Amino acid sequence: MGAAMKGVLIIADGLGGRPTDTPEGKTCLQAARTPNLDELARRGAVGLLDPIGPGVRPGSDTAHLSIFGYDPYREYPGRGVFEAVGVGLEVHGGDLCFRTNFATVDEGFVVLDRRAGRIHRGQEELEQALQALKPKSAPEVEVFFKASTEHRGALVLKGPDLSPAITEADPHRVGRRVLDVTPTEDTPQARRAAQIVNEIIRQSYELLKDLSINRERQAQGLPPANLLLPRGASTVPRLETLPERYGVQGVVIAAGALYIGVGVLAGLEFKRAEGATGGVDSNVLSKAKLAAAELSDGKDFAFVHMKGADSAGHDHNAAAKISFIEKVDEAFGYLLEHLDWNETHLAFTGDHCTPIVYGDHTSEPVPVGFVGPNVLRDDAREFSEKSAQQGGLGRFSSNIVPMLAGYNNWLRKFGT
Amino acid sequence: MGAAMKGVLIIADGLGGRPTDTPEGKTCLQAARTPNLDELARRGAVGLLDPIGPGVRPGSDTAHLSIFGYDPYREYPGRGVFEAVGVGLEVHGGDLCFRTNFATVDEGFVVLDRRAGRIHRGQEELEQALQALKPKSAPEVEVFFKASTEHRGALVLKGPDLSPAITEADPHRVGRRVLDVTPTEDTPQARRAAQIVNEIIRQSYELLKDLSINRERQAQGLPPANLLLPRGASTVPRLETLPERYGVQGVVIAAGALYIGVGVLAGLEFKRAEGATGGVDSNVLSKAKLAAAELSDGKDFAFVHMKGADSAGHDHNAAAKISFIEKVDEAFGYLLEHLDWNETHLAFTGDHCTPIVYGDHTSEPVPVGFVGPNVLRDDAREFSEKSAQQGGLGRFSSNIVPMLAGYNNWLRKFGT
Repeated sequence: MGAAMKGVLIIADGLGGRPTDTPEGKTCLQAARTPNLDELARRGAVGLLDPIGPGVRPGSDTAHLSIFGYDPYREYPGRGVFEAVGVGLEVHGGDLCFRTNFATVDEGFVVLDRRAGRIHRGQEELEQALQALKPKSAPEVEVFFKASTEHRGALVLKGPDLSPAITEADPHRVGRRVLDVTPTEDTPQARRAAQIVNEIIRQSYELLKDLSINRERQAQGLPPANLLLPRGASTVPRLETLPERYGVQGVVIAAGALYIGVGVLAGLEFKRAEGATGGVDSNVLSKAKLAAAELSDGKDFAFVHMKGADSAGHDHNAAAKISFIEKVDEAFGYLLEHLDWNETHLAFTGDHCTPIVYGDHTSEPVPVGFVGPNVLRDDAREFSEKSAQQGGLGRFSSNIVPMLAGYNNWLRKFGT
Repeated sequence: MGAAMKGVLIIADGLGGRPTDTPEGKTCLQAARTPNLDELARRGAVGLLDPIGPGVRPGSDTAHLSIFGYDPYREYPGRGVFEAVGVGLEVHGGDLCFRTNFATVDEGFVVLDRRAGRIHRGQEELEQALQALKPKSAPEVEVFFKASTEHRGALVLKGPDLSPAITEADPHRVGRRVLDVTPTEDTPQARRAAQIVNEIIRQSYELLKDLSINRERQAQGLPPANLLLPRGASTVPRLETLPERYGVQGVVIAAGALYIGVGVLAGLEFKRAEGATGGVDSNVLSKAKLAAAELSDGKDFAFVHMKGADSAGHDHNAAAKISFIEKVDEAFGYLLEHLDWNETHLAFTGDHCTPIVYGDHTSEPVPVGFVGPNVLRDDAREFSEKSAQQGGLGRFSSNIVPMLAGYNNWLRKFGT
């Protein structure tokens, strides 16, 4: 096939499972009815992906970097920057980025609720009030804050000499006092950053505690969102973008800030799909439709992220995970019919396993499938952890986007 | 099996293909009739080789280094040195090496033909004339040039402080002026190297333009070979040779300068096989006979390179690639009968895929087979990309020579 090929990468977060997922000894993916994924497996080839490497238990951030062909050991700066970019904050080299929670504390800064009751409306007022954040001890530092879903948000500090080498304020336990942020290395930059973050946390309490939204919440017996808890301090990495690496233009279709952030830092344009929530209720079909439309409109690449299987795994909810995977399968039904299979390669996998009993990410490999005109078919009859064990792609680590680029004839030669 | 075992590595350049190679959806290797390769697969085990790594599109130079067990990310200095060694020039640490083309330019140095009409005789006169190359601005630098096949050759500069950090003169397009070579890093060594190379290019024009061979060519309407275009600037790497690594003596049997160069830098002795041309017309049977004879004569290792499948792939010629693979198969028929299979291990693979439609190297894995007394047989019934998907060796990256050394009991222990 010729030079102008298109690529689709679909990540079902937490896709992989364990035989303990269901009483019958099947993983959720095995238990789900997935006629369209099975058809893709029959048309292409499957294998086992170690998202980072065998025996490495991936975070979603590091796994996505690795799948995109970046080396997470060298290029992972911490989570904050992905969240910041994902919520739409502008970042540049030298900025210090955090993901944040709205939390509930008492007057002595003891944490009563780390998520302020998963506050689900009124965040605009909180965000508005926090525009006044300004460290008095470092007036040259500019502060930017943006709320995202529920208690989540991101914070960016812009100024000279800001180091991410600082501890977290979040005690990660209710009933404990908010921790003093301290430097983790003995440099003026780290000491200064710690001081600024401590000041911002105290300032956020003053700015938030008496807001009308919080008075209302207290009147209703709900925990007030009266503190901003930053964590995941990170710098801004200089990633070689996909446009730079391959000369292609692409989109990221996701709901979670982290995944949007990874895509945007990789040089993709964020597109919002109708009904995409980042939860098990998300409209993943609308994501598939948007991806197909973007390719038809001239884009070369679409990265689609679907979160629900991971969330259900974290919730130990096998029925919800199976049902979400069946929704993903319907989205694949749409792609089977609507992509131009003469010129498109698609890769489908997860960024890690999230088995039901453990309820968190595990290190086992994840099934992966490639389909398209340049993929040599194997003998797989279905898409599952089991069929992937015998898959024609074998077992390999990371680099799904470079492999997709290879099938699409996008790669530059290394050597001559 | 005991200690005194022998090894044979056969690389069919560009061996791998894609299902788009033939109208029936088969790769050229699948379409070719290969009874002897299939017999080798039945006697041994097969698998999938990523010559450098998954999603890396290999050059022939980097792939060969990787297959030999060198790390191309650390030890690949550029192509020039392999060509220089391959044509028989002596090189030492500190030398600056180039591969070269004879090209045709007009008086204004606009390139009319990058290969001087693929000149196929008279190169001795050109080579002779270029012995006078001498940079006036750096009289302490010695210049060595040797022509190889057609328009190809190699250039070595010997002198203090020569940096390879310079751009190319070759505009890689007819109708463009020869480019000024410029330093790519801001060092006196790079600036000096750029100046010297520019001077040598200009000098080559003065030395070549009025030669009798070029007057004759012009009289016949052929493009004169009136300019030397160097490219692929490289230093000389210090590779641990196979004699050093394993205490074995071996030979390289190849026609292309690059492959001879890799073998010689790895400490192998070059042996010329009768009728070896580096093209699809090459007598690969004579290479197999020479390899068997060298092992009988006491050598421990033979590296045999066969180029034709790659050339046919670059030419988009499926029939030629299939027919060349069938010639390779005949050579394997000879080896099946004439190697001492009680004491010999053989590895067979390609350095990358060169599919027919794309006509250049691609990143998909290549089938590989090992056979010999210490190889545990798998269930493969034939040698192809498809059987390799289910092969007993699985999928792995690089290091074919170390694996062969392993079967041969040549490896030193890492640790105790």
